[in-house]
Amino acid sequence: MSADDRPIRNVLFIMCDQLRWDYLSCYGHPVLQTPAVDELARRGVRFDAAYVQSPVCVPSRMSFYSGRYVSSHGATWNHVPFPVGQLTLGDHLARAGREAILAGKTHVIPDVASLERLGLPRDSREARMRLDGGFGELDRYDGHSPPGTESGYADYLRRHGYDSRDPWTEFVVGGVDPAGGRAEGWLLRNAHLPARVAEAHSETAYMTDRALAFMREQGDRPWVLHLSYIKPHWPLMAPAPYHAMYRDADTGRIVKADPATENAHPVLQAYRKAHDDCRSYAREDVVRHVRPTYMGLVKQVDDHLRRVIDYLDESGRAKDTLVVFTADHGDHLGDHGLGEKELFYEQAVRVPMIVVDPRASADRTRGSASDAFVEGIDVVPTVLDALGLDAARHVVEGRSLQPLLHGEGVAGWRDAVFSELDYAFRDARHVLGRPVDQCRGWMVRTRRWKYVHWQGLRPQLFDLQHDPDELVDLGDAPGRGLDAVRAEMKDRLLEWHSARKVRTTVDEATVVRRTEDWRGNGLFIGVW
Amino acid sequence: MSADDRPIRNVLFIMCDQLRWDYLSCYGHPVLQTPAVDELARRGVRFDAAYVQSPVCVPSRMSFYSGRYVSSHGATWNHVPFPVGQLTLGDHLARAGREAILAGKTHVIPDVASLERLGLPRDSREARMRLDGGFGELDRYDGHSPPGTESGYADYLRRHGYDSRDPWTEFVVGGVDPAGGRAEGWLLRNAHLPARVAEAHSETAYMTDRALAFMREQGDRPWVLHLSYIKPHWPLMAPAPYHAMYRDADTGRIVKADPATENAHPVLQAYRKAHDDCRSYAREDVVRHVRPTYMGLVKQVDDHLRRVIDYLDESGRAKDTLVVFTADHGDHLGDHGLGEKELFYEQAVRVPMIVVDPRASADRTRGSASDAFVEGIDVVPTVLDALGLDAARHVVEGRSLQPLLHGEGVAGWRDAVFSELDYAFRDARHVLGRPVDQCRGWMVRTRRWKYVHWQGLRPQLFDLQHDPDELVDLGDAPGRGLDAVRAEMKDRLLEWHSARKVRTTVDEATVVRRTEDWRGNGLFIGVW
Repeated sequence: MSADDRPIRNVLFIMCDQLRWDYLSCYGHPVLQTPAVDELARRGVRFDAAYVQSPVCVPSRMSFYSGRYVSSHGATWNHVPFPVGQLTLGDHLARAGREAILAGKTHVIPDVASLERLGLPRDSREARMRLDGGFGELDRYDGHSPPGTESGYADYLRRHGYDSRDPWTEFVVGGVDPAGGRAEGWLLRNAHLPARVAEAHSETAYMTDRALAFMREQGDRPWVLHLSYIKPHWPLMAPAPYHAMYRDADTGRIVKADPATENAHPVLQAYRKAHDDCRSYAREDVVRHVRPTYMGLVKQVDDHLRRVIDYLDESGRAKDTLVVFTADHGDHLGDHGLGEKELFYEQAVRVPMIVVDPRASADRTRGSASDAFVEGIDVVPTVLDALGLDAARHVVEGRSLQPLLHGEGVAGWRDAVFSELDYAFRDARHVLGRPVDQCRGWMVRTRRWKYVHWQGLRPQLFDLQHDPDELVDLGDAPGRGLDAVRAEMKDRLLEWHSARKVRTTVDEATVVRRTEDWRGNGLFIGVW
Repeated sequence: MSADDRPIRNVLFIMCDQLRWDYLSCYGHPVLQTPAVDELARRGVRFDAAYVQSPVCVPSRMSFYSGRYVSSHGATWNHVPFPVGQLTLGDHLARAGREAILAGKTHVIPDVASLERLGLPRDSREARMRLDGGFGELDRYDGHSPPGTESGYADYLRRHGYDSRDPWTEFVVGGVDPAGGRAEGWLLRNAHLPARVAEAHSETAYMTDRALAFMREQGDRPWVLHLSYIKPHWPLMAPAPYHAMYRDADTGRIVKADPATENAHPVLQAYRKAHDDCRSYAREDVVRHVRPTYMGLVKQVDDHLRRVIDYLDESGRAKDTLVVFTADHGDHLGDHGLGEKELFYEQAVRVPMIVVDPRASADRTRGSASDAFVEGIDVVPTVLDALGLDAARHVVEGRSLQPLLHGEGVAGWRDAVFSELDYAFRDARHVLGRPVDQCRGWMVRTRRWKYVHWQGLRPQLFDLQHDPDELVDLGDAPGRGLDAVRAEMKDRLLEWHSARKVRTTVDEATVVRRTEDWRGNGLFIGVW
């Protein structure tokens, strides 16, 4: 090993919430400049075809944290507890005596019922780990309700003069309207107003402070840190000056299909009809009002990432730290007549993914872009690989990105990505009259096609070569060519289901060791 | 409610191990008379199309105990621990303050690694329940190695004069050869010899004694008892007089395909080539030597079931007890050139299933046979339904048989059954050169067709209408008609995979209650 190729000792796994891949300058945004993220891209590999395992926070994050598809970990939507038996990055690190530390959001819904059934005291170390999805808590803050005792943010705010029982609601997601009255950050109409909190005390600033303090305190001790920003997720209210930075900027086109040719799928129709966000974002004035705030929140994250990069450089940690930058899903921001996320349009399922491997072995890919299909489940195996730890192949379904980072070629790399949705908790279920256990959809996306299999409803199909904006649904379009495509996509889904790792309680070495081990255990079966 | 229609208070869930459906007189065996099982069939419904979720002990049993398919519970083969998060009959009963008691075999491989990871003391009540698959132990005895401390059988044997450190090996599965030497019950060649144990002290007798003692002790207190016989499972050595009872009987035909037309599948070829049992049972002399012993062991179970039925009648319990009689899988007994189980021939995946519902509401089906497709996973929901308990529909994948038992028609009943196999622990994997995580197969069986999807290998297909003995594999036979059949079977498998219950940590009522509950929780998403 040369002096320039010291091993990776630390991992900084940065996640944004609801950050579309194309709202970063290195991914081509024409207006929004994000020099810090661009700097990461220059130092590593920018993956241009990165997809999440569900276009919703909890299922996507549990896939990031477990390295497993949603059907394998079972937390299919935001209200679904993460099953007690599921292993996460923290568990895999713990086997090697290491720990994954959390600063920010995980959105783990703990499986309290199972902990109680198992008689586990809530305050045991093991139960705490389950409650936090396997992370050790530095500061857990999910960001869509007032911070609880697992975060220091509320106390921090009070110490800095935000005198309130609930300083988050009052100052962080609260603004002042022109008449001096209270402006609720929950309402899109207030997106142009500044938050009452000072930028230096805002969520993004606070969590960056916490992460920096942790890294400094660690000194030379190795660490794995998940720095998980809530932004640019709603409530859409930015602190000054970010609230106004893009107020007059070009907010881009709004992708809209021609209703006459769109062939809108029943689930799509139900979303548009039933959900607040879709009704709001269907209005162009709303979209134009909101996008500048979203851009400002992204810009703010980028500015704080600069502080993180500077720390890594100044401390020397840049040389032995693997950095992953990604998001849990995107945001339609009015495209396709939709707000928020869910469904399987590129705006929702495609995310930025940048990985910086500082080792000399990654030099030849440094600053390059890769169009290899990567998935959220690849982060855990990439981290384990970088740290030289056991890959837990009997549990982890993702693939280490290291061969791609080291330019070792992509022969045999995956040629499709998969994502899942469970809309049972949404009004769309009522609109469609579906039973609560039959509201699931599965996307398979190849280079050319995106196919979605919906329970009890016709599939969706988009030809991404001729229709990259996904404006014409060919799910039930006639034609033998399309029949063949749909049959192939179903075959791919069947193979995907067949490959799910359900045998998680024995590792592969044990399977090998115990193959035909009857006689060694005194059993003679069928021996004459 | 009439005096004759008292509610069900007790459940007796009787399982035999490795009992083929057609080795019972009520299922048509021409020689072997099983009047006690036949009596159960006269009192209830005999299901003539009952299938197990895997033709192997552990995965099949975990499906019986959890009401979930193998892909859903994850214990895919005999060496695979049953994951700590899986719920069983005992857990569902426990929520209602009731208990499932075990006398005999469960073959639960406990998920000790997870218990340790969760910091659960091994001797806690909750851990004990996990170790036993949710059963309360009366006497746990898996029957293929010397009974341990969780069974009283070894001590019982010693008390009855079998003076040995290991009386099971020495007396129960040990015989005496004509020269006075030791005859090992593990070896098929010794199947004609009597076990050294007296019949009254044999496994079947002992476990029946334990069950009867338990039921008597309960008196009027309601109970749920799993009486789980190890027999007619190997070691194939019966106590006198059962060892000789069928020695000269007609042991039936041996189902064998013409090698020229069989089109033997690679997995089938690998089994025949690599496994002891298949090599032994390929010899007709072995089959003719072994089947009489198997028949004797079945006969012995039947004789002891008579004692159970007599107790139920004498105590009055027959009037308020649901009785289920079934098996975890069958036995090829030389058919298809195979021994033992595994693969998906009817001999392995089809089992007897008789359910006695004593209520007047079941009178109109009493003594009838049903050709409805039923599965092992139906036992848990049937038991919960009979006891009037919550069906746990978010977890349990089987269906209550009560509508069938009460003659309410079978409109909308399932039109196919599913079974799974993981041969990673078998030498067949070596023969085929398959990776350990790609050795799975899935069977879908409709009225007419049996289709098996194998990872990485061609499928199997049998036309059960024209080839009920499954002698010609059409898995890769040409023809547009067969192409259409195979496509339909793959569609069925895709739908089956899609329907797996993975969202097990929230019940359906919670999904309904929490649908679009944002505003009630102070969240206003996408509201203008």
